[in-house]
Amino acid sequence: MPQPAKPRAPKTRTAFDLESYVARSCREVDRALGRFLPSERTKPATIHKAMRYSLFAGGKRMRPALCLAAAEACGGSWEDAMAMACAVECIHTYSLIHDDLPAMDNDDFRRGKPTNHKVFGEGVAVLAGDALLTQAFEIVAQGRTSRRYPAETLVMEVARASGSLQLIAGQVADLEGEGKKLPLAELRYIHERKTSALLCCSVRLGGMSAQCSPAQLEALTQFGYNVGLAFQIIDDILDVTQTSETLGKTAGKDTAAQKATYPSLLGLEKSRKEATRLTDLAFKALGQFKGKATALEALASYLLKRDR
Amino acid sequence: MPQPAKPRAPKTRTAFDLESYVARSCREVDRALGRFLPSERTKPATIHKAMRYSLFAGGKRMRPALCLAAAEACGGSWEDAMAMACAVECIHTYSLIHDDLPAMDNDDFRRGKPTNHKVFGEGVAVLAGDALLTQAFEIVAQGRTSRRYPAETLVMEVARASGSLQLIAGQVADLEGEGKKLPLAELRYIHERKTSALLCCSVRLGGMSAQCSPAQLEALTQFGYNVGLAFQIIDDILDVTQTSETLGKTAGKDTAAQKATYPSLLGLEKSRKEATRLTDLAFKALGQFKGKATALEALASYLLKRDR
Repeated sequence: MPQPAKPRAPKTRTAFDLESYVARSCREVDRALGRFLPSERTKPATIHKAMRYSLFAGGKRMRPALCLAAAEACGGSWEDAMAMACAVECIHTYSLIHDDLPAMDNDDFRRGKPTNHKVFGEGVAVLAGDALLTQAFEIVAQGRTSRRYPAETLVMEVARASGSLQLIAGQVADLEGEGKKLPLAELRYIHERKTSALLCCSVRLGGMSAQCSPAQLEALTQFGYNVGLAFQIIDDILDVTQTSETLGKTAGKDTAAQKATYPSLLGLEKSRKEATRLTDLAFKALGQFKGKATALEALASYLLKRDR
Repeated sequence: MPQPAKPRAPKTRTAFDLESYVARSCREVDRALGRFLPSERTKPATIHKAMRYSLFAGGKRMRPALCLAAAEACGGSWEDAMAMACAVECIHTYSLIHDDLPAMDNDDFRRGKPTNHKVFGEGVAVLAGDALLTQAFEIVAQGRTSRRYPAETLVMEVARASGSLQLIAGQVADLEGEGKKLPLAELRYIHERKTSALLCCSVRLGGMSAQCSPAQLEALTQFGYNVGLAFQIIDDILDVTQTSETLGKTAGKDTAAQKATYPSLLGLEKSRKEATRLTDLAFKALGQFKGKATALEALASYLLKRDR
């Protein structure tokens, strides 16, 4: 007599193991960064030590993870996206080093460690940031290109997202906004540039490395923009709700520097709702990928719910 | 009766009018830079004012001139080389802004004007340097490419010359060498990186924009390397022999900062001889171009004989 068929598992989605996904991408990105950057012993040792000190200070590697996940969503491989993932992490790290300088945010701690200028002095910290920015473009030039996305397109993408109309515009507006009561539109302008621009660029580069279609690129742009904005609102919230110990950097800095933030303008509750609304918009953009964007979805959820 | 033929002019080379050549290239480069950079009114206005303040502070535009002259020597046009000429000037200007910061050389004057951080504050000066560095790559990405020299090659050329093994290596070694009695080999290491690297890159990029042959590229490399080294030796000499007024920047800074220089290690006479020897080597490399390198030759002569 034939055995009765085993009952079929109900059609639920298997839980995506984000923790191991992020750990694996972190490991691969670290390995690639280690290969792209000159060793600590390369002359002049000071600059390479300083570059590596901040680059390997235990960052969460969220931008590279988003870049790799975007490549996957478009049917590409991590390998083809790896140079782009490393480039955006170099840009991100350079911007933190310069942002922490006494002339800017004047931060002594970052990721639970003394900031770059605290260890190497201000002069070297400025140069280490410069070197990481330059390194980013050297890495992009070594990345996978295609007819649709040649090197000039990839370089332009990184340069625009990091330039005086985006990332740097955000830093300047942030610097100039200290002590002022900014309207929400202006705060959003800052957040879009300080955070959304590079996050958006990360997923777009991932897509480009996978030779994504124009429609996919547009979806990634929507996703990146909204996740980026939600990410910065959450950052604002954590700055007032968490301790320095949990954050690994000085908490309450925004209030101390009299910076406009989402919580200071909208209150905590409305800020949380806005972050959720933006994350929902990001999810919606992923419809385009018909189930291949699980990692992107999980990353966006995590970024919304994180507590550090 | 037929008129007697006019006597033929003796076969001497017409004197090359360097002054008007440099004035013309300066004008064209300024115009192109003006187009590449966001206007002063573009938000955030501060950063674009700061970028333009230093970029249009009356620099001699020697690197762009060398770049354009190198393109000419290889049969190319100024137009095709213009983006590269502008990119190297952005890199040069960014490195000056950061070099002048209190944490580095701490200079209050440059080209007879207050330095960037004196006008805009240190935070904005750091960001203006960052923005010009980033802008350089955006400009390279818009430059003329060819099968032989695609965008990735041009970007790599600029990134390497400006990165932690060249330009930034020179700055770090310079910073670390202050107050130390360096041997000549170490001083040469610094000069090669601080000055030769970008000068060499300028002429190489000019050649590449003209789709130069490998032999021409090698000749330009030799030329650029030697002119660059001679240029920095002359800079060392001018620092001790000229007034701040003539230089438009603080004279005697090297001595005050106890920096090793060619004059301090070799004396003035031997330093002058070394600069002449290097310029002769540069001339020799131009043999390759069979008379088409008149502008490069004139520029090298001028750089050797300049008094500011």
